[in-house]
Amino acid sequence: MKSDQPELYTALTPSVLPLYDLNKTIVVIIDVLRATSTIAAALFNGAKHVIPVDNVARCIELGNLLDAITAGERDGKIAEGLQHGNSPLEYPRSFVEDKVLVLTTTNGTRLLYTALEKGAQTLITASFLNLSVVASYLLEQNQNVLLACAAWKNRINMEDTLLAGAIIDRVKEHFRINCDSSSIAHSLYTEARPGFYDFIRNKKASHFERLSAYGLEKDIRYCFTPDIANVLPIYKEGKLVAATL
Amino acid sequence: MKSDQPELYTALTPSVLPLYDLNKTIVVIIDVLRATSTIAAALFNGAKHVIPVDNVARCIELGNLLDAITAGERDGKIAEGLQHGNSPLEYPRSFVEDKVLVLTTTNGTRLLYTALEKGAQTLITASFLNLSVVASYLLEQNQNVLLACAAWKNRINMEDTLLAGAIIDRVKEHFRINCDSSSIAHSLYTEARPGFYDFIRNKKASHFERLSAYGLEKDIRYCFTPDIANVLPIYKEGKLVAATL
Repeated sequence: MKSDQPELYTALTPSVLPLYDLNKTIVVIIDVLRATSTIAAALFNGAKHVIPVDNVARCIELGNLLDAITAGERDGKIAEGLQHGNSPLEYPRSFVEDKVLVLTTTNGTRLLYTALEKGAQTLITASFLNLSVVASYLLEQNQNVLLACAAWKNRINMEDTLLAGAIIDRVKEHFRINCDSSSIAHSLYTEARPGFYDFIRNKKASHFERLSAYGLEKDIRYCFTPDIANVLPIYKEGKLVAATL
Repeated sequence: MKSDQPELYTALTPSVLPLYDLNKTIVVIIDVLRATSTIAAALFNGAKHVIPVDNVARCIELGNLLDAITAGERDGKIAEGLQHGNSPLEYPRSFVEDKVLVLTTTNGTRLLYTALEKGAQTLITASFLNLSVVASYLLEQNQNVLLACAAWKNRINMEDTLLAGAIIDRVKEHFRINCDSSSIAHSLYTEARPGFYDFIRNKKASHFERLSAYGLEKDIRYCFTPDIANVLPIYKEGKLVAATL
């Protein structure tokens, strides 16, 4: 850890976002189950872009105007009035290529808007699906980083904490990390590394239980698979687009 | 885990306190380094009671009125105008017996007031020094529990998370725990159990680094020693008193 290295912090819940300076910082939005996994899958499979919106009405309105796919969930289920849910498995290339996806979710897309309101200039989204490309980008940029976990209605969750830990594991030698939340996330990741799915099942992670009750184990397994959709979603003028690296 | 068991939640930072219903819940205030350790030590060593106050001016005023010891810190150092600091080692029986301590600290006493404002009815304070008696009390009461970590200026810290995990380890069979923060705290505790001091030193916990820089390693070691001041501080009409169990 050298004093000229950039800093890295982790916000385990949006409730602590006001404590951090989001300006001149790369804000990494993390919502493993499932918004940022879906964003990675859709862009990897050729979607033109994803438009994150913070409410269902706006999602429907933009869907009509742009002739786009409307997608999203509230409380883990497809939101009323939308065509599709928040499952990354709903967006194979055969369906999503060259299309626009308008997405609203309980936690992930809302966090993105909160971060923008608080002055974030550079926003990317991260999931296990695009872990390596996110880590490479952060190493390349050499700027301060805030890993921003979407959590569940502001309650810290295990899956977002694990991904924060996974990112930290890849980049930690190149950042100053004076942040206990980051250390805690990294410890948890180290413990879970032998098998994320079994780990969160055994720990009875609250969103695991919620999604399992809807029969979504397949989604969960998919969302914990590293590097199967290695694309870098970056926010530009209202859209999440696949960055050209 | 049975459905008729009371619930247990952990708030790793005061920022998430608004998410929880504090009424009809035992709120356990945790500020390992060092407010709740100092409170346990002072009461164990015979202090009549500890009056927690949320600002230095009020601390000085009450100290004069009650002819009491004024104590506290801001940013880890003795606050200007107060007689004593926030070190549990400053309060041996020879000094503190039969005296009243008026205490104000950066995080712990402030959290206590925040919890009261949010409707808390039953408040106790916990530290490693009184871990066993806190666990016994929670098991005995059979009510809902919120473990409320003081953190550092709302940033989650390792030492409070560890104590939350230690309490959970003692009581977990008797509560419904559908709370990822609690699981994370328990995992961290399990990892750190072989040696808390070495663990937080190796992890470069931020408040460990801060206090070490002031030469307070001895304080830190003391604050991580379980059950050397097994008294139960309970809040009653403005005072923390040793409960008779």
